[in-house]
Amino acid sequence: MLMLSNWLVYFAIGIGTALMAAGVQIIVELIAHQKFSLLKTYLDKCSTDKENCLYQPILIWMSINVGITLLASALVTYLQPMAAGSGIPLIKSYLNGVRIPGLLSLQAFVAKCVGVVLSILGGLACGKEGPMAHSGGIIAAGIGKGRIPWFKKYIDLYGLFRTDHNIRDLVAAGAASGVSAAFGAPVGGTLFSVEEAASFWNTELVWKVFFSAMVACFSTNFLLSAYEGHPTQLSNPGLVRFNTFPNLTFDLIEIPVFIIMAAIGGLIGSLFVVMNYKLTVFRQKYLHRKKWIKVVEASLVSGVSALAAFVLMFTIKDCTTAEPYNGHAFNTTMGCDGEGHNAMSTMFLTTPEGCLKALLHDSYDNYSVLTLVLFVTVFFFLGVWTYGLSVSSGVFIPSLTIGAAWGRLIGLGVIQLFPNQVLTSKAKDVGKYALIGAASQLGGCLRTTISLTVIIVECTGDITFGLCIMLALMISKWVGDFFTTGLYDMNVEVSGIPLLSWEPPPLCDHVYVSDFMSQPVMTFLPVEKVGHVYECLMGESFNGFPIIEQDPNCDSRYKGKLRGIILRFQILVLLSKKVFCQEGQVPSNQNSITLKDFQKTSPVAVRIEDIQLTDQEKQYVIDFRPFMNQTPYTVSLNFSMPRVFRLFRGLGLRHLVVVSDEFEPIGMVTRKDLAKYRAEIKKGMLHMEHLTVENR
Amino acid sequence: MLMLSNWLVYFAIGIGTALMAAGVQIIVELIAHQKFSLLKTYLDKCSTDKENCLYQPILIWMSINVGITLLASALVTYLQPMAAGSGIPLIKSYLNGVRIPGLLSLQAFVAKCVGVVLSILGGLACGKEGPMAHSGGIIAAGIGKGRIPWFKKYIDLYGLFRTDHNIRDLVAAGAASGVSAAFGAPVGGTLFSVEEAASFWNTELVWKVFFSAMVACFSTNFLLSAYEGHPTQLSNPGLVRFNTFPNLTFDLIEIPVFIIMAAIGGLIGSLFVVMNYKLTVFRQKYLHRKKWIKVVEASLVSGVSALAAFVLMFTIKDCTTAEPYNGHAFNTTMGCDGEGHNAMSTMFLTTPEGCLKALLHDSYDNYSVLTLVLFVTVFFFLGVWTYGLSVSSGVFIPSLTIGAAWGRLIGLGVIQLFPNQVLTSKAKDVGKYALIGAASQLGGCLRTTISLTVIIVECTGDITFGLCIMLALMISKWVGDFFTTGLYDMNVEVSGIPLLSWEPPPLCDHVYVSDFMSQPVMTFLPVEKVGHVYECLMGESFNGFPIIEQDPNCDSRYKGKLRGIILRFQILVLLSKKVFCQEGQVPSNQNSITLKDFQKTSPVAVRIEDIQLTDQEKQYVIDFRPFMNQTPYTVSLNFSMPRVFRLFRGLGLRHLVVVSDEFEPIGMVTRKDLAKYRAEIKKGMLHMEHLTVENR
Repeated sequence: MLMLSNWLVYFAIGIGTALMAAGVQIIVELIAHQKFSLLKTYLDKCSTDKENCLYQPILIWMSINVGITLLASALVTYLQPMAAGSGIPLIKSYLNGVRIPGLLSLQAFVAKCVGVVLSILGGLACGKEGPMAHSGGIIAAGIGKGRIPWFKKYIDLYGLFRTDHNIRDLVAAGAASGVSAAFGAPVGGTLFSVEEAASFWNTELVWKVFFSAMVACFSTNFLLSAYEGHPTQLSNPGLVRFNTFPNLTFDLIEIPVFIIMAAIGGLIGSLFVVMNYKLTVFRQKYLHRKKWIKVVEASLVSGVSALAAFVLMFTIKDCTTAEPYNGHAFNTTMGCDGEGHNAMSTMFLTTPEGCLKALLHDSYDNYSVLTLVLFVTVFFFLGVWTYGLSVSSGVFIPSLTIGAAWGRLIGLGVIQLFPNQVLTSKAKDVGKYALIGAASQLGGCLRTTISLTVIIVECTGDITFGLCIMLALMISKWVGDFFTTGLYDMNVEVSGIPLLSWEPPPLCDHVYVSDFMSQPVMTFLPVEKVGHVYECLMGESFNGFPIIEQDPNCDSRYKGKLRGIILRFQILVLLSKKVFCQEGQVPSNQNSITLKDFQKTSPVAVRIEDIQLTDQEKQYVIDFRPFMNQTPYTVSLNFSMPRVFRLFRGLGLRHLVVVSDEFEPIGMVTRKDLAKYRAEIKKGMLHMEHLTVENR
Repeated sequence: MLMLSNWLVYFAIGIGTALMAAGVQIIVELIAHQKFSLLKTYLDKCSTDKENCLYQPILIWMSINVGITLLASALVTYLQPMAAGSGIPLIKSYLNGVRIPGLLSLQAFVAKCVGVVLSILGGLACGKEGPMAHSGGIIAAGIGKGRIPWFKKYIDLYGLFRTDHNIRDLVAAGAASGVSAAFGAPVGGTLFSVEEAASFWNTELVWKVFFSAMVACFSTNFLLSAYEGHPTQLSNPGLVRFNTFPNLTFDLIEIPVFIIMAAIGGLIGSLFVVMNYKLTVFRQKYLHRKKWIKVVEASLVSGVSALAAFVLMFTIKDCTTAEPYNGHAFNTTMGCDGEGHNAMSTMFLTTPEGCLKALLHDSYDNYSVLTLVLFVTVFFFLGVWTYGLSVSSGVFIPSLTIGAAWGRLIGLGVIQLFPNQVLTSKAKDVGKYALIGAASQLGGCLRTTISLTVIIVECTGDITFGLCIMLALMISKWVGDFFTTGLYDMNVEVSGIPLLSWEPPPLCDHVYVSDFMSQPVMTFLPVEKVGHVYECLMGESFNGFPIIEQDPNCDSRYKGKLRGIILRFQILVLLSKKVFCQEGQVPSNQNSITLKDFQKTSPVAVRIEDIQLTDQEKQYVIDFRPFMNQTPYTVSLNFSMPRVFRLFRGLGLRHLVVVSDEFEPIGMVTRKDLAKYRAEIKKGMLHMEHLTVENR
């Protein structure tokens, strides 16, 4: 029965994520349709010679953008700043084992979901796919625990008590479901979760995550198809749909072109990262000290986005009569004097996602070279500026769009250079190059190679072309890695989160435990005076305390053989439940303390400052023996950094006791000690960096 | 440059595997075509009333089968018995860390590849997909090392020296490439490798494995398409091609039917495992003591297979005029008096793979219920009998075929019961049920859920239907697990290989290190007399020796603090290179010993018996300090089994030193000690089993 209920939870995660994803999608589509149809009407009307009222559409456009973005940014900034950005770096850190208060709260969920709808309607250059992973994670944690944090309280549904570890597994499933629903890629979503997060491949867990992702993908498909009026014809696997490349073929001689494109993707991708890095540091230093500045900046960007789009559409009078691929796309006849429509407007009078689809599938003569060059330049800067604003926004779609635009440019170039080499049709060919460009750009930005390959393969639904996509992602990663780390890693680095990477940092072979362990270590005897324990906890912020057996031959009470380890949190629970008594007695309530008492208490909720002890109680003694972990993992002083690192990563440790030859604790190693060392690659050279990790 | 050459190796593995897979496929297709066209001619001719010569085709059939199988079995039995069966259990054990001599040798490769061609041509109920994983692994090891073992020598190509660990990574890539080439499923192949083998998800490694698998899939596709005359139209992703279900749809009300089918699959699958288990034990006890008996048994099975097929075709005169789906399939008009053809013959006059395709895609009126019932019964027993013969054979295809046959039966039943509920077309519907049956049967047999789901999804090319396939595999695994372990695990168990599972065995929480460690432990001092070391190695078969520092206050020379660990293999290299000298001196050749000297030597090649020492040399001393591992992982006596297990699994350990409070070694734990405990589930009850693991 337990097993079944466990599976039901994973099923519910899939369903919940799908509902959320489909809801976001439908609302965005509905309102965006209204917005762009309004704009189109005004643009068409005002661009004729008779009425010279072009100031009207641009004013309407800018006010809509600024107004909505104001709301979007205020929601995130004042309700839950954790909801800013894509949330993937934070989810990644959380799954890596870092504790991030507020990340999985209800207000983060609201800010994330409503926020992303508003960001897209506000005309920002962002997508709604990244935030899905975060929202999925929150849904998972909520369903799993049966309660969800709302500010400092809990909203209790049915209150299941789970360990931290369980919740982490569920959040992995939620993130996978989010990605799966967003891209219609259950395998890709699962691998995304594993690649970004899990350190240990646990078949049982991955299977459950995969199940959630599959349910999410299927349900999203079902819901969206039902919305379109044909629930049994499932035709919407995921929110982004670029799975419309039937029978993609390619010639072996095209592979060198793809490789060059991948290198370009790596370059532009790392340029994106570098510029965004500088901007983020600048923002942290000067802009984001006041909340209202964040909101103003976001609104400014959305206003500029509208203005830039309008100026481009107005100045570049690239008129075409070629019908756009997507029947729903809007365009205006502005500047075309009744012949065809403004090509630039097809890309701007739509959501970034619609723009991506247009770039992938429109015919080769839909856009002129100049249009594409200007579009990619402007959109690149808008993308850089947008990512990191205090709004809920994803970076997948802008990256793909930038890549698709320059990929299309290269496709046009190839058709020009080798007019007789065109394989099938010109339209399909530019689409193919746009796809490779999109993959390269994404790879150059994000560098998470395995899952991205699978996601894009699942999106295009073609295994054969998978090799080319893989090549593009591989080479763009290599090129990108030569210059900077990936965008998410940069995010994590800037925020100072102690994340452990996959492999021990290089150049650390001769760094020994003695160099980076925390010492002196604070130890307790198996039976300690309550007052002493209380004072120690007040004075120190350590999270784990070795328990030692006092050496009868030795005077010092701080020297003795290691007997176990007890966590700060455990001591706090014992103190708050008053599990202590006079020396020589057994506390009356010792047996009434169960595992549930520890699980029930939120580790962030109990603080030593909140525990009140009378003077008499301080004279009592507390017995740690029934509660301590009697077999902590230990290492000796001469262990090297990589060996300790593997121990932490392989076993998911948080504390490691360093013992002397006499089996006496002489130091402690925590994640933070390990995260101090980080290798940095700049311009191909490897540097060692000694970080000061903040105490969060 | 090193990175590039590393990637080239993985590229070469993909290409090599593809060449092998495509070669096997083409040869089998060519010769099988000849064989069955010959049989068809005789059957057609002799079944007319005029000529009563039906003894001719059956004699020809049986002699072809017996003759070829004789060769197939002799090849495996006399050249390399390791090549018997699918090889997946052995590859799995190897990747798990067990050393299996001969597994990756050239003779195993020849026996495997030529053997599987002969097995299929010999008419056995087996497939060629499982062996691909093993052959791929051998190719990978050969390419990686640049040399390949041939009996007791090496065939040297370019001789790169790699660690055991590197080779294991390459073999994982080879196995993935094999599966990928076989099923056209690069993602599935990669996950297969990870699910079956890797304990630690290493993104870098998985990415390389994925690359190999992708290259293998693409190249196989290219080669097979080129063979068919259209190299640029890639249409053959993989050897098994059942990716021809365009727009599979299903109704939610069909899901209960699928669930029932999955349960049936679990039942029949575990019946398969149980029967095969009994047969394997019987074979080990009585039959496989003499090599010639193995060969005779295989030939007997192939003869019986032909006879059974003939008898079924002859007695069941199920004639149909419905055209078979596959244009290449043979059938005979035997017993049909000129009207239509014998339905049973469509399934038997082809390879098991062709039979699977026929069952999945033929129209609903191609086979009568009686035909299917008899076919599935006979084929089931043939399948059970065949798996475990001393021939190279896979179990994927027979499982899928059995499942497709009974799935089709259920499909016919559903159409009978709900004639108005048929969704699209009857033909497509029976095919759908056949597919679910195939998946359920495979899941019930093998239980490797994640990769199988992905493989089948990649084969059918439809994500939406993936949820149903996942359900089928999940439930068939649950039902199957209730009765027995999976087929591969059963294989491993019977062979007594010390394989560590994913999770520590249940019911072991109160088993402590002191209960299962090996003791007393043999220790050395940092500087030891050569004669003493020599005698110890002669007398004991331990593979790791702790190095201790003698306690000056203690008389016993075997008591002291742990200072390091040295492997038997390292000592053997030191002894054979004569890195020792008179007491007080430094050996002249100490600095000339490099890492390469250790890597160059094959761990199985050096034996203590082969090392000759003079009496004077035995008086010399050997200094272990420059060579020993100074920081072995240690645990104390009161560690529980699950904690030690996680340490082994998480870090991939082979030796663990158990230390006392005084940091003195008092025991050793090896994989074999851990593998002693295995939980067994029989009829839903959990038992603990204490195995005696043989010293291999």
